[in-house]
Amino acid sequence: MDRLEELVQRQAITDVLTDYCRLLDRMELADLAQLFTKDCEVAYGPDPRLTSTGRAALERSLARMWRWKRTAHHLSNVRVWFETDLLATAESAVFAWHEAADGSHAEMFGLYHDRFVRDEGVWRIARRRMEMAGSGGVFRVPIPPAHRAPPPKDWTAPDGLDG
Amino acid sequence: MDRLEELVQRQAITDVLTDYCRLLDRMELADLAQLFTKDCEVAYGPDPRLTSTGRAALERSLARMWRWKRTAHHLSNVRVWFETDLLATAESAVFAWHEAADGSHAEMFGLYHDRFVRDEGVWRIARRRMEMAGSGGVFRVPIPPAHRAPPPKDWTAPDGLDG
Amino acid sequence: MDRLEELVQRQAITDVLTDYCRLLDRMELADLAQLFTKDCEVAYGPDPRLTSTGRAALERSLARMWRWKRTAHHLSNVRVWFETDLLATAESAVFAWHEAADGSHAEMFGLYHDRFVRDEGVWRIARRRMEMAGSGGVFRVPIPPAHRAPPPKDWTAPDGLDG
Repeated sequence: MDRLEELVQRQAITDVLTDYCRLLDRMELADLAQLFTKDCEVAYGPDPRLTSTGRAALERSLARMWRWKRTAHHLSNVRVWFETDLLATAESAVFAWHEAADGSHAEMFGLYHDRFVRDEGVWRIARRRMEMAGSGGVFRVPIPPAHRAPPPKDWTAPDGLDG
Repeated sequence: MDRLEELVQRQAITDVLTDYCRLLDRMELADLAQLFTKDCEVAYGPDPRLTSTGRAALERSLARMWRWKRTAHHLSNVRVWFETDLLATAESAVFAWHEAADGSHAEMFGLYHDRFVRDEGVWRIARRRMEMAGSGGVFRVPIPPAHRAPPPKDWTAPDGLDG
Repeated sequence: MDRLEELVQRQAITDVLTDYCRLLDRMELADLAQLFTKDCEVAYGPDPRLTSTGRAALERSLARMWRWKRTAHHLSNVRVWFETDLLATAESAVFAWHEAADGSHAEMFGLYHDRFVRDEGVWRIARRRMEMAGSGGVFRVPIPPAHRAPPPKDWTAPDGLDG
């Protein structure tokens, strides 16, 4: 790809990531499923209720989001790496806010690790794996923790910075 | 528009959306009003105090934000659709944090629906309509709810995911 | 720079800003330090523990983040202004979530003011200065407040908007 082509395709991939968030908050799951390949493999975590293969299974699985009264998925930190003209890897962050039926709230700070493929000019997610930095409020979904390097053995916390 | 032109104009529109957030947090309302057309129609909600026509009225209306001690508007999920070289529609999401005079906080999860027009090379917002997914803390402003499809009649919540 | 070149370089700068957030949450500080120039001047605030000169000192200083169990830095509102082909200014916003060892949380709403220089084709941060709109939870780090214009003398708060 030349430089212009790469910018165009990067924007197309970013639009898919954005549309996922928009359509999830709107719960337009049939349209959302079209952002994925027919044989997509999606794992928000190892729990079987968070894992699906294929568009139809993904749509059924994401129906779980109706247990929330409302959600807001805010995407950021998008990085795209092209392997070929038809294959790319993407990483992005999501700040997801959820309102439960009783009015209580849940926040989640997640990472999407995606494999994109381009078919007939359209980029779709072929594989999605999710991790999270953490969560707050009533969030209890078992999404696995994101990688974080541990401190060196001789590390000591600075004094008084949080005082 | 060719592909390069479209990327350039999309970036220009994104910059306007970003500047709106920056200038609102800085409360530089005269500069902020310049991001809108002279005859702009802006409705953060149906309440007359949230509605204005024209730049000067928008500037006067947004002076209401001074009742917060501080705000932080974080933009994401930007989507732009061009109708012509001079006309575009945009949707974006905002996570807005507000600090009240007494130190209490209010969070809002909003959507901006914008109509952009280009005049003498400059994109401006001609019409803005706001919706929200919801809010937390002491936020009470009557912003209308964003669209969300209801579950099918036979939907049942999955067991134990939040346990 | 022509228009294509400017879009390409803007994306390269945005990627650096994004990688900073990704690598900080991963605590891969040696890689993070490579995003800065050798002689970088970084000030998250006037406190000496928040200030550093040079890559090695920055890496040592950011080791302070290990006092948090987890963090999530969500970047938004990126603006880039080119001065020359090799020099740019950028402003961006960050919503940073932190989890303390005892499980309590801290939120921070910050702004990065960056000076970028391009050397051998690579953009790096030569100077970073941070400000914040505010914070919530157990956040106590003395990051200086961002600029916000005060209301005019005759300003009065609208009635009932928050009721």
